[in-house]
Amino acid sequence: MEELIARILRDGKNLGNGILKVDSFVNHQVDPRLMDACGVELARRFAGVGATKILTAEISGIAPALMTALRLGLPVVYARKSKPVTMTNAVFLTLAPSHTKGVMTELIVSPEFLSSDERILIIDDFLASGATIIGLVRLAQTAGATIVGIGALIEKTFEGGRAALKSLGVPVESLVCITDMEGDKIVFGRCE
Amino acid sequence: MEELIARILRDGKNLGNGILKVDSFVNHQVDPRLMDACGVELARRFAGVGATKILTAEISGIAPALMTALRLGLPVVYARKSKPVTMTNAVFLTLAPSHTKGVMTELIVSPEFLSSDERILIIDDFLASGATIIGLVRLAQTAGATIVGIGALIEKTFEGGRAALKSLGVPVESLVCITDMEGDKIVFGRCE
Repeated sequence: MEELIARILRDGKNLGNGILKVDSFVNHQVDPRLMDACGVELARRFAGVGATKILTAEISGIAPALMTALRLGLPVVYARKSKPVTMTNAVFLTLAPSHTKGVMTELIVSPEFLSSDERILIIDDFLASGATIIGLVRLAQTAGATIVGIGALIEKTFEGGRAALKSLGVPVESLVCITDMEGDKIVFGRCE
Repeated sequence: MEELIARILRDGKNLGNGILKVDSFVNHQVDPRLMDACGVELARRFAGVGATKILTAEISGIAPALMTALRLGLPVVYARKSKPVTMTNAVFLTLAPSHTKGVMTELIVSPEFLSSDERILIIDDFLASGATIIGLVRLAQTAGATIVGIGALIEKTFEGGRAALKSLGVPVESLVCITDMEGDKIVFGRCE
């Protein structure tokens, strides 16, 4: 997706260790028109998978998931990283390592919003090692739901997430793929 | 806003102690079409205030702020509750009491995205005691920015937030106002 590549090249920063700073337009500060364009494109790619619900993880997955959900006319559920008082006591919970924080993070979904008849499309901002997305897959599978697709704004192909998701046998779509971040480079390439 | 009132009456739950559970359509699970309708209405109400940026707090402020920002064509910044590795070390930080968690929460914004020439519209899901919103006001004022308006989806008038914000002298707009939650009631009334 050319618009997103252009924005990453203009405003993104390679902080080293595979960390891409996109907090001027994806997380922290968000460009809603760019997110909407990304949502339109993800909705187009997943129009045929028969999803009934979108699942993402707070916090930075919310904007792309919400815009995709708007275009597909689906509800979106974001897994919480801590349990609010409004949530029932019995929850679906899994642990996923946080790439940028270096700790394990809880992912929690209320059983009210994840049931065995759902067809789940997972949307997140990044596909890197796939750890967060695999955590979301586990939550959905625990509920007995079916995963029908996985979408991300930005994939870092050199972190192996796509291979880790392959056994699910569902379409994995990233809007842009970064193949190399050695030194201060940001190199785009094929999503494979 | 009739659509939001109808949804609260249908799917909201009064959990007691002034806590309204709306996690099937505002937070945790989000109805993107309802959030979009709310964003359209908030954008209409604040079309004339000359805002240059929308400020909100993660997590549940993101959806309404994003949809309002989309319609106004403005960037949105969400204050973080913990500092990610991609954020600069020098930050704007304040503490605000969390109504539903019973603890103090940090609100953190990078100085990159909040500067003295900004005209800030604050959008959040709830206006209750006003504590979170006053925290956002402090952050913006620390940056030297100008507050031009404050908007919320749902106001609980009996918690006094509107009075606490009065001295700012800016328009405060809530899409629906709840005046009484005694027992298991949810009573709507005038926003004042």
